[in-house]
Amino acid sequence: MSSSFGTLFRITTFGESHGRGVGAIIDGCPPKLPLDKSDIQPQLDRRRPAQSELTTPREEADRVTILSGVDNGITLGTPIALLVKNTDQRPADYRRMRTVPRPSHADYTYRMKYGTQASSGGGRASARETVGRVAAGAVAEKFLRDRYGIEIVAWVSSVETIEAPPPDIGSIIRKDVDHAAVRCPDPDAAEKMQAAIIAAQKGGDSLGGIISCVCRHIPAGLGEPVFDKTEALLAQAMLSIPATKGIEIGSGFAGSRMRGSEHNDAFIKRGVKLGTQTNYRGGIQGGITNGEPIVFRVAFKPPATISLPQKTVDFEGNDTVLEAKGRHDPCVVPRAVPIVESMAALALVDLALRQKMRENETV
Amino acid sequence: MSSSFGTLFRITTFGESHGRGVGAIIDGCPPKLPLDKSDIQPQLDRRRPAQSELTTPREEADRVTILSGVDNGITLGTPIALLVKNTDQRPADYRRMRTVPRPSHADYTYRMKYGTQASSGGGRASARETVGRVAAGAVAEKFLRDRYGIEIVAWVSSVETIEAPPPDIGSIIRKDVDHAAVRCPDPDAAEKMQAAIIAAQKGGDSLGGIISCVCRHIPAGLGEPVFDKTEALLAQAMLSIPATKGIEIGSGFAGSRMRGSEHNDAFIKRGVKLGTQTNYRGGIQGGITNGEPIVFRVAFKPPATISLPQKTVDFEGNDTVLEAKGRHDPCVVPRAVPIVESMAALALVDLALRQKMRENETV
Amino acid sequence: MSSSFGTLFRITTFGESHGRGVGAIIDGCPPKLPLDKSDIQPQLDRRRPAQSELTTPREEADRVTILSGVDNGITLGTPIALLVKNTDQRPADYRRMRTVPRPSHADYTYRMKYGTQASSGGGRASARETVGRVAAGAVAEKFLRDRYGIEIVAWVSSVETIEAPPPDIGSIIRKDVDHAAVRCPDPDAAEKMQAAIIAAQKGGDSLGGIISCVCRHIPAGLGEPVFDKTEALLAQAMLSIPATKGIEIGSGFAGSRMRGSEHNDAFIKRGVKLGTQTNYRGGIQGGITNGEPIVFRVAFKPPATISLPQKTVDFEGNDTVLEAKGRHDPCVVPRAVPIVESMAALALVDLALRQKMRENETV
Amino acid sequence: MSSSFGTLFRITTFGESHGRGVGAIIDGCPPKLPLDKSDIQPQLDRRRPAQSELTTPREEADRVTILSGVDNGITLGTPIALLVKNTDQRPADYRRMRTVPRPSHADYTYRMKYGTQASSGGGRASARETVGRVAAGAVAEKFLRDRYGIEIVAWVSSVETIEAPPPDIGSIIRKDVDHAAVRCPDPDAAEKMQAAIIAAQKGGDSLGGIISCVCRHIPAGLGEPVFDKTEALLAQAMLSIPATKGIEIGSGFAGSRMRGSEHNDAFIKRGVKLGTQTNYRGGIQGGITNGEPIVFRVAFKPPATISLPQKTVDFEGNDTVLEAKGRHDPCVVPRAVPIVESMAALALVDLALRQKMRENETV
Repeated sequence: MSSSFGTLFRITTFGESHGRGVGAIIDGCPPKLPLDKSDIQPQLDRRRPAQSELTTPREEADRVTILSGVDNGITLGTPIALLVKNTDQRPADYRRMRTVPRPSHADYTYRMKYGTQASSGGGRASARETVGRVAAGAVAEKFLRDRYGIEIVAWVSSVETIEAPPPDIGSIIRKDVDHAAVRCPDPDAAEKMQAAIIAAQKGGDSLGGIISCVCRHIPAGLGEPVFDKTEALLAQAMLSIPATKGIEIGSGFAGSRMRGSEHNDAFIKRGVKLGTQTNYRGGIQGGITNGEPIVFRVAFKPPATISLPQKTVDFEGNDTVLEAKGRHDPCVVPRAVPIVESMAALALVDLALRQKMRENETV
Repeated sequence: MSSSFGTLFRITTFGESHGRGVGAIIDGCPPKLPLDKSDIQPQLDRRRPAQSELTTPREEADRVTILSGVDNGITLGTPIALLVKNTDQRPADYRRMRTVPRPSHADYTYRMKYGTQASSGGGRASARETVGRVAAGAVAEKFLRDRYGIEIVAWVSSVETIEAPPPDIGSIIRKDVDHAAVRCPDPDAAEKMQAAIIAAQKGGDSLGGIISCVCRHIPAGLGEPVFDKTEALLAQAMLSIPATKGIEIGSGFAGSRMRGSEHNDAFIKRGVKLGTQTNYRGGIQGGITNGEPIVFRVAFKPPATISLPQKTVDFEGNDTVLEAKGRHDPCVVPRAVPIVESMAALALVDLALRQKMRENETV
Repeated sequence: MSSSFGTLFRITTFGESHGRGVGAIIDGCPPKLPLDKSDIQPQLDRRRPAQSELTTPREEADRVTILSGVDNGITLGTPIALLVKNTDQRPADYRRMRTVPRPSHADYTYRMKYGTQASSGGGRASARETVGRVAAGAVAEKFLRDRYGIEIVAWVSSVETIEAPPPDIGSIIRKDVDHAAVRCPDPDAAEKMQAAIIAAQKGGDSLGGIISCVCRHIPAGLGEPVFDKTEALLAQAMLSIPATKGIEIGSGFAGSRMRGSEHNDAFIKRGVKLGTQTNYRGGIQGGITNGEPIVFRVAFKPPATISLPQKTVDFEGNDTVLEAKGRHDPCVVPRAVPIVESMAALALVDLALRQKMRENETV
Repeated sequence: MSSSFGTLFRITTFGESHGRGVGAIIDGCPPKLPLDKSDIQPQLDRRRPAQSELTTPREEADRVTILSGVDNGITLGTPIALLVKNTDQRPADYRRMRTVPRPSHADYTYRMKYGTQASSGGGRASARETVGRVAAGAVAEKFLRDRYGIEIVAWVSSVETIEAPPPDIGSIIRKDVDHAAVRCPDPDAAEKMQAAIIAAQKGGDSLGGIISCVCRHIPAGLGEPVFDKTEALLAQAMLSIPATKGIEIGSGFAGSRMRGSEHNDAFIKRGVKLGTQTNYRGGIQGGITNGEPIVFRVAFKPPATISLPQKTVDFEGNDTVLEAKGRHDPCVVPRAVPIVESMAALALVDLALRQKMRENETV
């Protein structure tokens, strides 16, 4: 297992989908950051199930408790332990998977890896594990916002083949994103996406989608070449989220079809610093932030759990037909928006603290 | 800096483009692996400059020396230090960049991060840094091949807008890839790609491209949820390579446009184990390998160094026109093929050793 | 903060002395280990306050809850979160330390490091932090015992100037240690120690002492040269325990006064393996276990909290006299015995799992 | 293997006693530190063999080469690779140990761990491995001296039973230490120690000893509770040095025989900060430096290699008598002085950089 992420702002998550609770410990949060539950709960609310008709009906209030590390409303610099209790567990829904590994789910691979698996639900492979990430990510965001003014906003840019026109990445805020349950800022596209998701659910099927994200007001100089370059850490962070299949930064795959003469971002004077005229690099050069917005996109596959019958085999290899029960989202992207933001915050906060060791040395 | 990668099979690379040498230390290679220079040199030869008319004319023989960790032709289990000396350095080519940061290059961000930069060339941001990765990756590959029979093959699947038809991922070998200098296994596409690259170079421009990679005979059970999932480590590994802009695993971004009913990979009986009928997951479920081939694609941007004049500003913000000198590749993908393979090997060998701690526990 | 210990069996502890609770996450415990609370509670009971007249009267039941990672009585291989709630908190006892840093306590240094400190008690510097270590250590011990038959036994070998004669390290068990509240296996010495501790407490003073520890049935080959040698990790582990001032392995400081001809441990045949005739090395050669018992001793200073008045200065440097309140142990060694055992188990379990990566490679 | 030490200022050492060379990579040295070989060579010269009649006659010039990370006389912030070539190798001296494991040496345990061992000499267990530590430690010391004014001085305080009176730890400098080849600052004790060492060598025997060390001008606030407390990291650092058997900080084992009323270090006003009247804590409270000098002592066993015949058994368990050849020191402490200083510097530099992440946060 590797349930820790980060070098200086290091989180460790814990919890199965159907155990007593889920959460995270943050080790390395700087001291004297004002912090209470109200800094954390909003993102958990955006992530929680049963928030709209687009999401699983599993009822979890997902109220966070801060067990340690905060005193008199400020962080102590000691480990911050965050706990969210599980309440709505229905292990009976998951009995069949003990004999039949669900296609494209983690039942088979967990058994191959651990020789055992949680008695119900996706265990540690469940999206429920991301509760700890979102709680910890909210703390990271608070620090980044307070100290650097960093803003991180993610949104749904496509569901299946429905693509939304790009918003203004310089000004988009979470309120724009949340106006629709699907979390797409474009009203027309949002409407179509929601209809498609509901139709898919009724048909017993599921849909994939893409989340875009922008991080603004990033100081230049973050990123640790060569293996912890900003894009490398973001890539690890994003592809550790369940159901992700790809990430692209800046121009991404489209950039591979361009020529240097069009792709190069010419420098321009921007106040006392330099900026770039275009931003095909997505805010990162040589693995290090250049002060321009970081822009990236993450691909999510359609959820594996569908209620349509599936021909497959059981653990012994015998033919069978699986009709899944359990409560799952027909499309994960609406709820994954705060997860993407949280993982971005966790990658950036660690890079920001690591760069601090060079302060005053680099004048 | 974060120049180390891996938890148990940990490499640390060193060296600037224009210093005395480049290389890597491998800490944690298992003992008793037969190893000599001939295991390492072939991949360095595939990576080295001046190997064809498609690559930079910088002449570097790139001969590896094993400084430690190997005795009587086998590894000792102690750190293996690998050194490749630099020979063809022309710092004079790089003088201008001290005052003018090259667009889309790392001159500006290195100065913002470190307050200084190497006096010549791309320093640590140069592709020359990857020599250490390729040397260490060859050792990782040797171990994976000897112990598990793992095969890793990467190839150029597109250059600019020229896309090659997909090869048979079950059988493609490096010889198929190397028949053309551009390292595309499809003869027709290879010819077009090579013509496009030479034309771009003559026109002072550069081209992007995509590298595809397959890893075969992977044992089921590799990958460390939740942050070191196989796809997460591969993503970090790939996006730490210079000039990369994206990675997708299995169905990738196309998977985001699919429905669960088509995307789910039904299980089938395959000997005493299970396999999957399709492989949209790209060999990974829940972050853990399922025994099917791992398939992924990496996007590379066009190189930043072009000889066409570029309007930009100097470090002080004054307008200027830059006409780059120095010797660079017009398209990096042909030489990046062994780098992708090496980073894949480094990610997989670490996951393989980490899984060993569960052996006999999981029976 | 660095609240994590271990590479493969990694624990992260959390909790202040006077927050909501303390505990630990274990990331990397192998799957399928039978585990329930009864494996953990006994060591917590040996560590808990108010267990005898020799210890602080602070009343804490210290009942452990397993929040995750265990299902149907076996470990899942996923993070095991362990929580112990705090109940008996008296912040009022600690008000004075906001203005007067207690001599030899951590009030001053925590303020210098973090710019703040917990509003009451020793915060993270309190011995209460060790609850998480003991809970996690009990899990480590269970694994080491089940898989290798390893036995770890610590005891009080001296209190102030009262030294107990050495027990038979080949046979001593915890029952021998626990016959007296002071945890010294020698009845005469135990009686004197207990009298001395009670006298010191009545006099408002405190006493130091030494804990000895033996680890038996250690497989040969554990220890990771050169920085994670067995003695190096044990030294880090022990000197991370509050109030420790030194550690010596095998012959220790006395060994520095010996000659090679007497200190060398000649090999002897022991069944199909080799053993050593003497054990001045303390079971470790070149940083690697040789199969003989590991023997070490840890020095503990007298507790800083005494009720005798102390001349000192406040945070502003003004002269003052401090008369401490709060509830503390007059001598920490009786309660530190399970802490030493736990930290030894945590160091050894990590080295055992790391050595597994070489299994089958080293035949 | 675990050949890396440090989190932010991370060194990785490589090299066997009889391979091509030994050295280290420093990853994380801050940029813009003036550095050239003359900063490193003096400590290597103090460590090198054949420097006096007290040391092994093996002739190694131990000249360091800086392969990377330094340009125009300053560090780049990129990895600094340091190489020292081996020249005087005599593998023939070591043939016997292939069949007979030397008592108290690492031949047996390396074979148990790795299933193989270097064909000659102590391999990675040789003191020659410490060349990389000393080279890297010199860079760490340079940074600590330039930025904080930190001074680190170690000396031989005892050889066998010959104890030197303690020097003034506030003023002792390396010149005082180096006036005698044995590196004891007290002339009388030094003379006796040297005579004892030469006598032991002539008699085919070896002697143990103790090195004391003081680190002055340490800023308050260094040390990362709870596992990377200053004393914990120093303990790991010191007990990773070959031949060490113990470490004590401040009052150490003697402190275990004291009462709180005498052991507590009362605070006093010292300029604008606080100091302590006594320093039984050895400059560390709660794992964090308090600004007073850090003082510690390290015990070294007598070297295992002696020329007196030793009764032992071979790898198969057959009785034999070993008469060692090879060239070794009769007492390691004189040459271990710079190693102790280097490891102290490496522990402190890492803690100093880690504390920087809290700067400006903790005002």
